[in-house]
Amino acid sequence: MQILKDRIVKDGQVIGTEIVKVDSFLNHQIDVTLMSEIGKEFATRFAGLPINKILTVESSGIALACATAIHMGNLPVVFAKKAVPSTMTEGCYSTETISFTKNTVYSMIVSKKYLSKDDNLLIIDDFLAHGGAALGLEDLARQAGATVYGIGAAVEKEFQGGSDKLRLKGYRVESLAVISSIKDGYIIFKNNKEGERLR
Amino acid sequence: MQILKDRIVKDGQVIGTEIVKVDSFLNHQIDVTLMSEIGKEFATRFAGLPINKILTVESSGIALACATAIHMGNLPVVFAKKAVPSTMTEGCYSTETISFTKNTVYSMIVSKKYLSKDDNLLIIDDFLAHGGAALGLEDLARQAGATVYGIGAAVEKEFQGGSDKLRLKGYRVESLAVISSIKDGYIIFKNNKEGERLR
Repeated sequence: MQILKDRIVKDGQVIGTEIVKVDSFLNHQIDVTLMSEIGKEFATRFAGLPINKILTVESSGIALACATAIHMGNLPVVFAKKAVPSTMTEGCYSTETISFTKNTVYSMIVSKKYLSKDDNLLIIDDFLAHGGAALGLEDLARQAGATVYGIGAAVEKEFQGGSDKLRLKGYRVESLAVISSIKDGYIIFKNNKEGERLR
Repeated sequence: MQILKDRIVKDGQVIGTEIVKVDSFLNHQIDVTLMSEIGKEFATRFAGLPINKILTVESSGIALACATAIHMGNLPVVFAKKAVPSTMTEGCYSTETISFTKNTVYSMIVSKKYLSKDDNLLIIDDFLAHGGAALGLEDLARQAGATVYGIGAAVEKEFQGGSDKLRLKGYRVESLAVISSIKDGYIIFKNNKEGERLR
């Protein structure tokens, strides 16, 4: 998705060889116009599937998930809540997830009221890196007996392997800006001409 | 706002005399159509003011804040992040807030990059109860030298006093569903005929 890649190049910030900060438009300050474009793109890519609910995780996934839900016919959005492990989880589906970025373990929880075997889910998140959050959401869906029809991420850091893990499990993954590598402070997007460094 | 009050009556859940759960449409599962209506209502109530940014706090405020931002001409949204006290806060405005509901203290943080003296803010949140979150957001705005033009909450629990505190500080407060009291498991909204219990 060119406008997202352009925006990452314009306003993103590279830290080392693993981290891209996009907090000026995606996960601290939010550009709602861009969110709507992203939502429209996910709706196009996952069109024709019997998706009836969007699943995401707080906090940065919420704006994206809502924008996507609007463009898919005002579907309900459910966001998993993060909690420290062993929080009281009665009446909830719960899974433990590793955050590689923060080097911590956290739980994701969804009330049993809001996921069921009747749900055909699209999982949406801002980043797909090692895949921890997406695999956690997929685990919550599995516990509920729901069906996952696809996984959409705004920004994928392909070199961290998350999308491969998800595709090996049979899931369709759509990422709108796929970063192949980060070298010398430059982001190299997948499918750009060799050597074309966008930043 | 009648459709919100109706929805609270239909799908809300009363716990004791202080808590109203609205997690089926507002803060766990999200109804994006209702969010859009709420956003439109805030945009109408705060029309004509030179607001250039929406400030909220993760997580439940985000969907509402984005919907409001869209209806106010695609303004940027900034959400404060919650962190445990004494997190590294370099480069951030930080304030400590008491959650009366959870009986905890937490920090709210906003990067100095995303709040400044040039910002004319509308503060948006899902609930206004004792006022902790709104007062914390107002403190962050004050630290940045920003101007707060108003505070909007979807659901106000008037009997917990938050809106009075904010109005005493001179702020305009708009709440879309004002709960005067909760008695015997019934919600009593402000400005309904005496004795008319909507639930």
